[in-house]
Amino acid sequence: MSGWLAVAGLGPGDAALLTPEVSEALSRATDIVGYGPYVARVSARPGLVLHPSDNRVELDRARHALELAAAGRRVVVVSSGDPGVFAMASALFEAVEVEPRFAALDISILPGITAMLAAAARLGAPLGHDFAAINLSDNLKPFALVERRVLAAAQAGFALAFYNPRSAARPHQFARVLDLLRGCCEPGRLIAFARAVTTPDESLQVVTLAEAVPEMADMRTVVLVGNADTRRVGRWIYTPRSAGGVR
Amino acid sequence: MSGWLAVAGLGPGDAALLTPEVSEALSRATDIVGYGPYVARVSARPGLVLHPSDNRVELDRARHALELAAAGRRVVVVSSGDPGVFAMASALFEAVEVEPRFAALDISILPGITAMLAAAARLGAPLGHDFAAINLSDNLKPFALVERRVLAAAQAGFALAFYNPRSAARPHQFARVLDLLRGCCEPGRLIAFARAVTTPDESLQVVTLAEAVPEMADMRTVVLVGNADTRRVGRWIYTPRSAGGVR
Repeated sequence: MSGWLAVAGLGPGDAALLTPEVSEALSRATDIVGYGPYVARVSARPGLVLHPSDNRVELDRARHALELAAAGRRVVVVSSGDPGVFAMASALFEAVEVEPRFAALDISILPGITAMLAAAARLGAPLGHDFAAINLSDNLKPFALVERRVLAAAQAGFALAFYNPRSAARPHQFARVLDLLRGCCEPGRLIAFARAVTTPDESLQVVTLAEAVPEMADMRTVVLVGNADTRRVGRWIYTPRSAGGVR
Repeated sequence: MSGWLAVAGLGPGDAALLTPEVSEALSRATDIVGYGPYVARVSARPGLVLHPSDNRVELDRARHALELAAAGRRVVVVSSGDPGVFAMASALFEAVEVEPRFAALDISILPGITAMLAAAARLGAPLGHDFAAINLSDNLKPFALVERRVLAAAQAGFALAFYNPRSAARPHQFARVLDLLRGCCEPGRLIAFARAVTTPDESLQVVTLAEAVPEMADMRTVVLVGNADTRRVGRWIYTPRSAGGVR
């Protein structure tokens, strides 16, 4: 038996957003590897071994998955959303770089619906023009770099999507990000807090930058900040396709 | 009969990347509205009316779809990729803004796998850290704004995804973008040209910024530019999760 490894995106939560490609990989797998809550989204069946692990052990998890595939197992590493966006695909290639023998394995990355695009769809079309995606966690980068990127992108007129905006371990940094935005954007700038999108816990909140408070975000929230043209229409928000005075 | 309108993302091409949510909407629709090549991806069946239209008539198309839904039809407006990323969702809300009576309609946006994430998955994990998505077309914005955003994002260390990099009507602007990047990034910076990803015409090319020439891109290409840490491992490229010296 020849082993393989797929890093698969489960989408934001709703099974109706899981691609057939990922469903097929899950149905052919012998082993599912991933953060516990994501592994729990895969249906158990005879012969399928589940390997749930804790958060923040991405490299160990990747190495374990690679070892299983090298031993001939058919392994799916599950990520929420898209595996290439602040998720397991980069960790997997970091592990391959450390042990180049793994590069000969049959590896594939299976895309999924990432949180910012699921949230944007629920809200209307807030990312309908140029946008930037920023992971606000300083777990793997200095917070000064987060600040620099937020400012640069906002000043250049990008809409923004923030992943991992706020956690119990770092409750104050998102307040700093809001202050930075207030320093360079008008008070009426629209900001959306989309929590647990497409799950039974979904909540959506759209406010102005003047009204935004840090407590509107937690680790299950993706935060979308419009550009200067982003506006409300009916119950939606959207960003026009044109910019800079061109119509 | 009560009409509805869904703006649906068909993904990059492969039917295995079409979400069940979109498949379900297509199966319940009475009318499919969209740019001809995208409408052609929907299977014909008795009772389903196809309304293919030309490129660059997005507002007319949106208004037509809204009129159909207002008349009680079940309408799916099809986009390639994700409808919220440089596609039909913004155009639809622009049309609603012009005629607010449409805001009372049953409208939903159904996300899809957008080209940059499908391309990233094929290539490895080049967008594994903070990144910006920029539409290089100056159809609806001044090219000076494109230039400003490319520079700002590259200088702030974002990986970049370029949509609509180059067309027959504007063959020279992408050369200017490459020159801008060469002015602020090292010559070994990795740049990937992903054309018609997941279709039979798919081609992937990874070169350095020094090696890149404008002819590597056309309108079916999404261009991904790594950040300073993006590197090759085996046959893939990936961007590490860490930055700024943090490990």
